Formats: sequence, C-alpha cells, structure tokens
Amino acid sequence: MSAYTGRLRCVRCGGEHPDPSLELVGAGCPACAADGVPANILPGYDLTGLTALPVDAAQPGLFRYRALLPLAAGTAPVSLGEGGTPVVELPQLAERTGVARVWVKDESRNPTWSYKDRLAAVAVTKAVEVGAETVVVASTGNHGAAVAAYAARAGLRCVVLTLASVPATMKTLMQSYGADVVALERPPDRWSLMRDLVAARGWMAMSGFAYPPAGSNPYGVDGYKTIAYELVEQLPRPPDVVVVPVAYGDGLAGIARGFADLAALGVIERAPRLLAAEPFGPLAEALATGAATAGPVPVRPSVSFSTASPFGTQQSLAALRAAGGAAVATPDDEEIMATQLQLARESGVYLEASSVTAVVALAAARAAGTVRPDDTVVVVGTSTGLKDVGATAARLPEVPLIVPTIGALDDALAGAPAARPAG
Amino acid sequence: MSAYTGRLRCVRCGGEHPDPSLELVGAGCPACAADGVPANILPGYDLTGLTALPVDAAQPGLFRYRALLPLAAGTAPVSLGEGGTPVVELPQLAERTGVARVWVKDESRNPTWSYKDRLAAVAVTKAVEVGAETVVVASTGNHGAAVAAYAARAGLRCVVLTLASVPATMKTLMQSYGADVVALERPPDRWSLMRDLVAARGWMAMSGFAYPPAGSNPYGVDGYKTIAYELVEQLPRPPDVVVVPVAYGDGLAGIARGFADLAALGVIERAPRLLAAEPFGPLAEALATGAATAGPVPVRPSVSFSTASPFGTQQSLAALRAAGGAAVATPDDEEIMATQLQLARESGVYLEASSVTAVVALAAARAAGTVRPDDTVVVVGTSTGLKDVGATAARLPEVPLIVPTIGALDDALAGAPAARPAG
Ligand SMILES: [Zn+2]
Ligand SMILES: [Zn+2]
Repeated sequence: MSAYTGRLRCVRCGGEHPDPSLELVGAGCPACAADGVPANILPGYDLTGLTALPVDAAQPGLFRYRALLPLAAGTAPVSLGEGGTPVVELPQLAERTGVARVWVKDESRNPTWSYKDRLAAVAVTKAVEVGAETVVVASTGNHGAAVAAYAARAGLRCVVLTLASVPATMKTLMQSYGADVVALERPPDRWSLMRDLVAARGWMAMSGFAYPPAGSNPYGVDGYKTIAYELVEQLPRPPDVVVVPVAYGDGLAGIARGFADLAALGVIERAPRLLAAEPFGPLAEALATGAATAGPVPVRPSVSFSTASPFGTQQSLAALRAAGGAAVATPDDEEIMATQLQLARESGVYLEASSVTAVVALAAARAAGTVRPDDTVVVVGTSTGLKDVGATAARLPEVPLIVPTIGALDDALAGAPAARPAG
Repeated sequence: MSAYTGRLRCVRCGGEHPDPSLELVGAGCPACAADGVPANILPGYDLTGLTALPVDAAQPGLFRYRALLPLAAGTAPVSLGEGGTPVVELPQLAERTGVARVWVKDESRNPTWSYKDRLAAVAVTKAVEVGAETVVVASTGNHGAAVAAYAARAGLRCVVLTLASVPATMKTLMQSYGADVVALERPPDRWSLMRDLVAARGWMAMSGFAYPPAGSNPYGVDGYKTIAYELVEQLPRPPDVVVVPVAYGDGLAGIARGFADLAALGVIERAPRLLAAEPFGPLAEALATGAATAGPVPVRPSVSFSTASPFGTQQSLAALRAAGGAAVATPDDEEIMATQLQLARESGVYLEASSVTAVVALAAARAAGTVRPDDTVVVVGTSTGLKDVGATAARLPEVPLIVPTIGALDDALAGAPAARPAG
C-alpha cells in the first residue's frame, strides 16, 4: 500500500505528468523550461485516511517508509541498509552558538557514507521498476558514489560524468563500485552530454541535466523525506530549525516534503523552519530580493566542492518560502575548515567541508536573529570528512617521527602546538 | 544493574585482579608475563538470574547492552551513537563460495567508520569512570582514530603512537580529532614507550603494550560483545559461522565472549564457530601444531596494514579453541585487492583491505571443508575502504578527460576496459 498517486507534479507551475516519464526525469517540467526557468517535477501523494506515520518494519533500510515513497507495490527495494542514522547531540556547539539544543543527524553513517544514499536507494529502485538498464549521473562525488553502489547492488550499469577537479578519493570510490567514470572540463558540459545520452540511449538520469539546474531525479528527492520521518521518531520533540547544506536543494526539498507529510498526517503541529547553507548564496540573495529565480552568483574554487553552485533551484526556493526558511552564504574556506576541526575536537564528529557549512550557517543565522535562543536545532551532517582528507591535512602539522623515550615525546609535542586541540 | 563482577580474570591462568588496575591494563596478567607469555585479563560477569538478553533502550548506542558491560552503575556513557550497524546480505558471495547464506556486518557504519568504535566507547567511558585524564594508544589507524574521537567527546587528552608507514588518511583522521600523534620507527618501540608513559604519568592504555602482544584494553574488548548481541537480534536465526579479521584478536575475543553470554543466558543453543582471518597466519599455525603460543611468523608489508601481525594472542587462541574455531592466513595482496573490488562491484559494499581478508578466508575455509555448504555465515566488515583509498586507486585506471559528445564517451570507455565491472 502506497500513498503515491503515480503522477509527478511541477514544483513551479503545478503541471502534472505521468510516471514513468523518463525524458522528463532530469530535464524537469517542459512548460517551465520553455519559460527559461527549469523546475523539478516531484511525486504526488494522497494521504487521505492516514493519521499516523506508516512504518513497515519488515522492509530494509529506508523502505520501512515505503508507503510514502514513489514506488509501485510489487517493486523489490534495492537496499544497502541505508538510513536509520543516529542523532548525536552537540552541547558545546549549542552553548557557543546560543541556542537551546543542537544535534547533528550523522548521515556519514550511510552505506557510502553520505546522505546521497537515500536518493540513490529510491532512484535506483525506480530504475529497476521501469526497466532501465543503465543509469547516468553527473556528480562531483557523493552523489556519483551512492548511485554507483546502488547500481552495482541492482546489477545495472552506471556511467558517471564528473569533473577533473574532484578529489582523488571521490574518483576512486566511484570507480570501485564498477561505474564507468569520465571527467569533463566544465560543469555544464556534463549536463548537455547527459541530455544527449538520455535521449539517444534511454538511460535513466540519476541527477538533473537542466540548465540552470532544476534538481535531481524526482523519485530520489523523495528519499530524503525519510530524514524528516526519522528525526521525528528519534528526538524527544520535533526540532524548531533544521539546517541543510544546499547545492541544488534535493535534500532540502525532500526534507521539507517529509515534514509537510508529517504535518498533514497530524504527527507534528507544524513543520520546522529550514535553513539552507550554501557556499555562494544564490538562495540567500533571491530570498532577500524576492526574485523568482536564484542566481547565478559569482563562484570560485571552494573546499565545499560538493555544494559550490552559482544557482539555487525552484524546488529549494519553494521549500524555503513555504517553510518560513532562510538561507546563508558560507563563502569563507578558512572558517569552514577551522569549524570542521573544532567540531571534531570538541564533539568527536568529523564531517566533510560541505556538511560543515551547516554549522557555519547556524552561527550566522543566530547572530542575525533568524535562529533564536530557545530554538532546538538539527544540522544535517551530509557526509564524512574522509571524502576529502586532503583539505584537512593541508591545515594540520606533520606527524613527527621520534625515538621511543618520554623526553622525545615531550619535545615533539612541545614543538607541534598546532596538533593540540584548540579548546 | 550490571552483571559485571568488578574483577578482571586472566584468559590464560585464570588469575583474578581488582578493577581498576591501571598498571595491568595494557600489560596483562603479571603471572603469565613472568612466564614469558603475556595474556590479557578480561572482565568477569555473573549471569545468575538472567534468562534473556538484557536491553536498556534508553541508553545511547551500544550502551543499550550496558548490563553486560564492565561499568559501574553511575557512569555516564561516552557515546557517539556507535553500534546498531546493519547486516547486508551478499548473495553472489554465498553462491560463489558455496554456502547457504552470507551477510556482512557493516561496521563501517560506526562513528569513525570502523568497529574500533565499540572498543573506544567502552574503554574511554571506563577511563572517565576511573578518573584518567589522558589516554594513550598504539595504533596504525582505526584504533587510534576511534580512541581519539571518543577522547575528544569525553574531554580527555589523547596521545597516539603510530608508525611512519601508515596511510596519510589515517594520520589525518587521528589528528583531526585533536589527538597528539607521533610516529615511531618499529612497532615494539611504541609499546616500550607506552609502558614507560603509563608507569610514569598514570595515563590509561587504550591498547596493549605487552611484548609479545596480549590484546587491548580489557574493558574495550568487551565492547565487541555487542556485535554478537546485535547479530542474534538482527538475523532470522544465529549464524553457523562468524568470520573476523584478526591482528591481536580483540574483536574475535569480544565476539566470542558475547556469544558465550548468549549461550549461557539460553538465548542461543550454541555459539557459532569462529573463523579468524589473519594476513600471515600465526593462529593458523598454532592451531595446526597445537602450540601454546602463536607466532612469531615472518611478515612483510601488506595491504592489510591494520592486521598484519607476526603474533597471535592468548585471548584469540583461547577463543578459537573454545568455539571450535579455525584460522586462515590471507597473505596474497593481489587476491585481497581483487576481492575488494569484486565485492564493491557485485554488492555495493566497499571495505578496507583488512576487512576483505575475512571474505578471502571464508573462500579458503570453504575449499578446505572447515566451512560447509549448509552453513550460514557472517563476515565482520571491520572498516571502510575509504581509510586507504590509495591502495585501491593503484589498481584502477585513470579517469579519462573527454569532450562532451557521445562519441568521445564511447571511445573513452572502450579504451578503459579495466574500469568496467569484472562480472
Ligand atoms: Zn512547470
Ligand atoms: Zn595469567
């Protein structure tokens, strides 16, 4: 039993489209594209008759919530035991920031160590459902790795279009799962090639290829709804604020949809406010000016390579406006990397730079009054610091080689004060 | 309420020792050390009156099983939400190996992405309980990273003695959590320095410093008992065989103790057979010859750097002998790395080389008849492949840079056949 209506609906114009509609998955709404404003089409649900969060404990991983996922009844889930990630409280961060409580939703605890596994689990399951034999994804890393792993699990071929500039760890991870990985010079090159491949070969897109971007595979976006469901099951009461690192806003849009479901079901009174953390601030600018589209804004190389986009998307603008949300630009690489280490050293949680932008954004939003002293907050820790250890290592001292005496140890540690915790 | 007796007992001679006994933690039993056979002293329990697995769902992470952990009643757990890792079925591996079913217990889904978090959670909690202010650990990576993270969480200082040869990722990870990390030239140098530091400064040892090795912090070893508890709660019925990568056998000994608890409680009829996977085979040799000690055997540099030990320990020999266990040497780096990629490509599970030895050992044990066709098997996937991506990358092709046309993509993929899944 699923509440899914079997139809996709444009987040901008409300136009409806049948499922499956492979040519629209990744391209978005044709009417809005003709307007020059690509917008994602996302699954529709009919919650009539439901009064609680439906859970099927017999299903693996996030498919325990499959009644609220866009799948046909008979489809076998492609699961690696994703989801069910813990919330870890960050008391020092709460005190320093001046809010009531803060937890990190530690999404590094997923099968490929990022929250993209939630998208990949649902999108690849859908690919199997519709009979696709090859999936294709444009990715700087986490997204591609997640899709590659789930495609491997499902026995599908996976082609990843990446950039030459992505960290070696990300390339290795994607290739390890057996994906065919090629690099292109400029981000939009990946999308034009993807559009051609989907049209010519019938491959299913696991990420969007509209330009400007509209967001990812619509089925996959709804995989993120499960973050909201889990938070409400895990925490003593629903959080006031949820902070999400945003590139094209798949995670933000999905989480917002999950909370909207919970509000519609009467499980929560109202949805939390959402706060988007984005390196260069296209959504922040659009919210400030009331613009109908977000970006392009100027970009440059960033430690937050996973989220460093010049554009926001219609789905994330809509999600923020519906939820009384806000967005914060987090352009300062040094602040991000210092916060990464501070978090690891005071709380034992080591997140990817892109994830750390959520912590930086929280502090900025608190300073600006968008987040208040009595708020409880969840930051979504989207991925592990292991995905780009090089960026961290560049800010750490060499490990000294010593002879085995206490004196030598003392001398080495006295000479390497930067190796000590700051606090 | 805890079943812990508050006394430590030697795994070799049965001698009892009080808790806490900081000078014996890491050094092991003094009587056996005087015999020239260092042996670990592990916590004792009195299960009288218990007839089921006691679970306290209000406790975080693995402390849900704290009634069977060696802690005082009032001690606050130091937790990062460790444990509760999923079991993921590996049907292709089962078919290829010729056994009934195989699951991987995916321990990469822990806070620092390895099973060492179970040890660190309990050992660091104990350090806080006894009032230690600094913890010290000799480690090639996973163990040090886990202890560093939990020490950070608890506000303790952490000193890591490592080797110059460990992968850069491991050093960065340990430093990120704020540990003071120094390298020594030879493994035994670390142990002599650690012994000196514990004696001179009252630091608490998070790993062993006996030579030959005896095993790790005794409280931490019992953190691994929770793997057995979880397996019995997660699987349809208890597995016949559990395969564990082994260096000094902390994980193996702990898992064996967990299953012994479950058998004593009547939760399972009998403990599964244990299979130790070890790069160079000291336990395999001792089991074959009936020797009272395991190793030293010749070693060389290995991709399984986490477990490449010339010695087995008394605790692992005892665990294997008690459980009808076996051990398999897995010295072939190329076989390990090929199996790492095969597993990632057919199942979407990317494990560290040391973890993959468990899969290699399973195949060897099946071929030798130690594991039978009707056996159900769990391999303990101790850590993520992300901990040493360099070893994987060396066996993968370059990612080709292409222009954005279908023809260029086809040409690049035709020229890079090694990037395709083998199957
Ligand atoms: Zn539209
Ligand atoms: Zn003894």
